[in-house]
Amino acid sequence: MEAFECVFCQKNYPVDPFHTFCPKCQEPLLYIGPQTDKKFHHNKDHPLEVMLDFLPLDHVNHDLSLGEGNTPLIRLKNVEKNFRLPALYAKNETINPTLSFKDRGTALAIQKAISLGIEKIGTVSTGNMAISTAAYGARAGIKTFVLVKDGAHREILNSTGIYNPVMINVKGDYGELFRRSFSLGKKNNIYFTNSVDPFRIEGYKVTAFETFFQLDQRVPDFIFVPVSSGGHLIGIIKAFHELKQHGFIKKYPHFVGVQAEGCSPIARTFQAKKLSVERIEKAETIAKAISNPDPPGGNILLRMIRRAGGTIMSAPEDKILEAQRKLAELEGIFIQPASATTLVGFLELAEKGKIGPKSRIVLILTGSGMKASKKTKKSDAQVLQASLSDLPDIIKSVKSD
Amino acid sequence: MEAFECVFCQKNYPVDPFHTFCPKCQEPLLYIGPQTDKKFHHNKDHPLEVMLDFLPLDHVNHDLSLGEGNTPLIRLKNVEKNFRLPALYAKNETINPTLSFKDRGTALAIQKAISLGIEKIGTVSTGNMAISTAAYGARAGIKTFVLVKDGAHREILNSTGIYNPVMINVKGDYGELFRRSFSLGKKNNIYFTNSVDPFRIEGYKVTAFETFFQLDQRVPDFIFVPVSSGGHLIGIIKAFHELKQHGFIKKYPHFVGVQAEGCSPIARTFQAKKLSVERIEKAETIAKAISNPDPPGGNILLRMIRRAGGTIMSAPEDKILEAQRKLAELEGIFIQPASATTLVGFLELAEKGKIGPKSRIVLILTGSGMKASKKTKKSDAQVLQASLSDLPDIIKSVKSD
Repeated sequence: MEAFECVFCQKNYPVDPFHTFCPKCQEPLLYIGPQTDKKFHHNKDHPLEVMLDFLPLDHVNHDLSLGEGNTPLIRLKNVEKNFRLPALYAKNETINPTLSFKDRGTALAIQKAISLGIEKIGTVSTGNMAISTAAYGARAGIKTFVLVKDGAHREILNSTGIYNPVMINVKGDYGELFRRSFSLGKKNNIYFTNSVDPFRIEGYKVTAFETFFQLDQRVPDFIFVPVSSGGHLIGIIKAFHELKQHGFIKKYPHFVGVQAEGCSPIARTFQAKKLSVERIEKAETIAKAISNPDPPGGNILLRMIRRAGGTIMSAPEDKILEAQRKLAELEGIFIQPASATTLVGFLELAEKGKIGPKSRIVLILTGSGMKASKKTKKSDAQVLQASLSDLPDIIKSVKSD
Repeated sequence: MEAFECVFCQKNYPVDPFHTFCPKCQEPLLYIGPQTDKKFHHNKDHPLEVMLDFLPLDHVNHDLSLGEGNTPLIRLKNVEKNFRLPALYAKNETINPTLSFKDRGTALAIQKAISLGIEKIGTVSTGNMAISTAAYGARAGIKTFVLVKDGAHREILNSTGIYNPVMINVKGDYGELFRRSFSLGKKNNIYFTNSVDPFRIEGYKVTAFETFFQLDQRVPDFIFVPVSSGGHLIGIIKAFHELKQHGFIKKYPHFVGVQAEGCSPIARTFQAKKLSVERIEKAETIAKAISNPDPPGGNILLRMIRRAGGTIMSAPEDKILEAQRKLAELEGIFIQPASATTLVGFLELAEKGKIGPKSRIVLILTGSGMKASKKTKKSDAQVLQASLSDLPDIIKSVKSD
């Protein structure tokens, strides 16, 4: 009935949280559920319950939830006006319990873990995922291992440490650490829910389903998603695939994955029309949250994009912070640089005339600017100086423009 | 039909965003709406639309919204177990667009401002409110003035500045600045939506309404709210008052306002059974977000608490960070110290036997720990050190306890 599938080898394996990759070709496995009739339960409040038929869960344990999901989809009319653009929406995944889209995946993974009697979880991360996994592990009351790269940002360590996980700072190659975590997990009964964990990817589907219903069951023409390991966009494409399969939609959106130029191995491969992503040696980008030089989901993502229709592009580094500021100044939404790549990518395609005037576009905003590093919080804002007595004159002097 | 009311002078004034205080007694005014039949519109998605009959709005302009509200109410079973407590819930207001409850009030104020044709807004704040007002001002595309106290935290200035408001750093007494902002606003057509703005308070009501419906229309026995200027708790009490007035409930919750001991002018006044709050000279608390030595809503809050039933208490400074950590470690929720005072207050009342074993308790969590200062992010978490080769042994050595 249900299985983990390797789309490359066209082979099914038993569902097993300790198997993220195909033992034959080492590509990530995807969960496939029973092929029964499925519907959405709109009378439910919790998004995982609304989407239950489409997820690898029998029920939702509310004691494990932190209230993830039901994030706003908001129209960006000021950006539209400013750049003379068609209907533009932001799906704001930063309004999640730990301020990033990772909570979608972690929420699903933790539901699954507890239902299977798993007692230890883990993750390999230097950012959003570390925080999210530590938080949900604490909520579930299970031992949580967070393996971080040596030299990780102090701010992230603090925000992860507050949940009191087992944090291990590991010296050595990060890609190697990522791969080894799985065998270590297996040996020690720790379910490593890393970036391309099949259950985590199932959680990301929920974002796409929500967006579809928030648009009154219309398919966006374009959907822009920041790409690092690939897991997030894989989940979103998979959701639209299932919507099509079950007759809810007839066509796909044009999926646009955006990487930061300083670390864009998947975009390079896509542009070169190659099939297999090559690891890059040096990643240097302001968009730390999507800085993965050796993305484990790269090949499967390229395959899915080619089948469903879409693009993987890269956002020039010098435009990322500018887009981040624009979104804050024009719409009051403060995001991480990683998320700002979607606006950069969109503006580039619009400028090239690739987006029709009647299009409906969705940008998926993945992480909050509030937890970004100081360097990325530099604003153009000037701070005027006043005393109580000269304040009236200073206020008067501000032009209304 | 509608008016701004002074509950002390029992006098009504015209509704006017440029009038926050009674011209006679200088106490904050409260909005009163037309006394028609009111109902909730549960078929709507946006909380302001669900509650529209109870709010000073004719309609909701979605272009001004950042998707505030619909925050989770989650059961804290681990805290319950750990401390042997009755049913405990957290209303997590940190999952709002700018990570604090202020967005509830700002969202309402900005709707009202734009519907009245106001072109400039402002606020006086050193923290959450500055960020929230700057964000909503940007979203509305209007000039936004943020007056900050000299010496405000750099982190807050950055997170506010990103939205590009007019920021003015004002030297001099903060209480004086607060009061003067209103006359300056009037002169310069800037609507100052400060902490006890009647429209802001109307926005806080929505949190109480949501909680009531999330509890399947049951009234919590106790509701704990951090108290600074008083505006937030005033709004919450007002909401339950209106629920009673319109026949939705028969009794009030026991309202518990919690201040941090190092700045607890309202709690002191309450405990001393006095009516009029005296400004304290020196505020020294770890809970910066509720550090107001001269709370403008103090007297009206005391009056409302005495009428509806409740307490204003203070949380010992040395227990605040401990409670903050406990909530993170046990439930995966990371809050500002200001919010942690609710858990401290609750545990104290529980210990004193003041909370029955069958009670239903709600803690209102007001601000995210992610934007708190570094000092308050110190966790107990130990970071283990490993290389790739000794990682297996280190993982194995971690006890399962």
